[in-house]
Amino acid sequence: MKLIRFGKSGEEKPGLIGPGGERLDCSGWFGDWDRAFFAAGGPAALAKRLAAERGQLPRVAEEERWGAPVARPGKLIGIGLNYSDHAREAGMAVPEEPIVFLKATNTVVGPYDDVLIPRGSEKTDWEVELGVVVGREARYVESVEAARGFIAGYCISNDVSERAFQLERGGQWTKGKSCDTFNPLGPWLATVDEVPAAEALGMSLTVNGEVRQNGSTATMIFKPDHLVWYLSQFMTLEPGDVITTGTPPGVGMGMKPPRFLRTGDVMELAIDGLGRQRQVCRNA
Amino acid sequence: MKLIRFGKSGEEKPGLIGPGGERLDCSGWFGDWDRAFFAAGGPAALAKRLAAERGQLPRVAEEERWGAPVARPGKLIGIGLNYSDHAREAGMAVPEEPIVFLKATNTVVGPYDDVLIPRGSEKTDWEVELGVVVGREARYVESVEAARGFIAGYCISNDVSERAFQLERGGQWTKGKSCDTFNPLGPWLATVDEVPAAEALGMSLTVNGEVRQNGSTATMIFKPDHLVWYLSQFMTLEPGDVITTGTPPGVGMGMKPPRFLRTGDVMELAIDGLGRQRQVCRNA
Repeated sequence: MKLIRFGKSGEEKPGLIGPGGERLDCSGWFGDWDRAFFAAGGPAALAKRLAAERGQLPRVAEEERWGAPVARPGKLIGIGLNYSDHAREAGMAVPEEPIVFLKATNTVVGPYDDVLIPRGSEKTDWEVELGVVVGREARYVESVEAARGFIAGYCISNDVSERAFQLERGGQWTKGKSCDTFNPLGPWLATVDEVPAAEALGMSLTVNGEVRQNGSTATMIFKPDHLVWYLSQFMTLEPGDVITTGTPPGVGMGMKPPRFLRTGDVMELAIDGLGRQRQVCRNA
Repeated sequence: MKLIRFGKSGEEKPGLIGPGGERLDCSGWFGDWDRAFFAAGGPAALAKRLAAERGQLPRVAEEERWGAPVARPGKLIGIGLNYSDHAREAGMAVPEEPIVFLKATNTVVGPYDDVLIPRGSEKTDWEVELGVVVGREARYVESVEAARGFIAGYCISNDVSERAFQLERGGQWTKGKSCDTFNPLGPWLATVDEVPAAEALGMSLTVNGEVRQNGSTATMIFKPDHLVWYLSQFMTLEPGDVITTGTPPGVGMGMKPPRFLRTGDVMELAIDGLGRQRQVCRNA
């Protein structure tokens, strides 16, 4: 299944992508794709109901905004330097264990929403990433192998980052990772059964039509299952939490000379099987 | 006013401290002390109703658990190295601007709940801190002076930290700051009018009755108003968000030799006007 949400920001309703690519409204069946939905085994219940009653779902009107495909998560966890080719490009050693940071959860916006360049920003940068949505409470998961069972599915995540705020303003990365609108998610959440090979998905990002990133999850160092297992040794992952799993080579900071986003720039992101995003940059 | 919450974890109800120190149940008037409450100007509405109808609030039963005094926040923001005497103790330079990190919001527990020492932890440490609760949406606040108007109130915050996870496991502080139960809050949220001198509050922490921290917010480098103004330049602060503002000298990591928490240890925290916390450490 491909789960979506639609409607005004803050008032999104749950839906899904139908067999012909059309958007279908599930708000008559479920309240939202949120923690409670995943915790209650919602995807299985949805699949069952779909099999019996698919024809009865109303269509979503064409003009309705696309929201992030999951409700605002309890945690939005980032993984740093998680692609071997990106580590090489950055001239940095491959990490021995995952580098973990948190992003403010109010950074999450829809896949076609504007991205706001913060006031005073000169180094707003892009990062196409595989987003992993947690499906079940995960605490001290016993093994990497067991971790797959805690994943609800995958989506595109743009881990927008202000490099000066992140790296030149003292201390932790938070200031450059948590600005408003800095995490477009979607267009859809593909449930695990739809993504048999999360370990080999092509992914790309263009700015104003020029290719900037063109990689594959094949060069990801710590894979989604490993990350879920690993993170659960430190903190309880909750249903609906989102992990944005690191970016392949080609970020603006790594270009020679570096290039960053300006108002009017258009980012387009794609990951195999997970659709496409498009954001226009605007000044905050 | 001194706002409290009471009841089982995850099912807390709102209340307040009455004139004789008794706990009063406000759940007949308001749903919770959460984002919606603060966003709607709840404290003013509560004060008005209290003035008219205080006698009608039922008492909270003695045996009811104390919850954190605010609902799970949208963001739990930490400030690092924010006391000049603590910076000296740590042999580090005073930061030029605030060091900002995020803690997972599911670390928040009540003021008397157990603190769980994570599996594999040898360096779980204490940090008594002034917690600041945001009362209004704050985005690009114009000045430090204007920031006070965005603060709902203050509470004690124990920013529990696993030093090996924080500092010896690669990258950011997240792994050592976001373990389950790592942020007791409360016992109450004192609204701003109750705390005329947030800049000079005595604060202390004992472990098994021995004083470990004994300081004052007077040595805080970046004060609450400054922090709210500063953070709002990077991200929108939302009503109900909590800022834990840094710790004075005396953490276990700074002792010679260092000392950390073990199962059975008892932490007691106090800040002038904000009450007392007490947690027993247990193994996760």
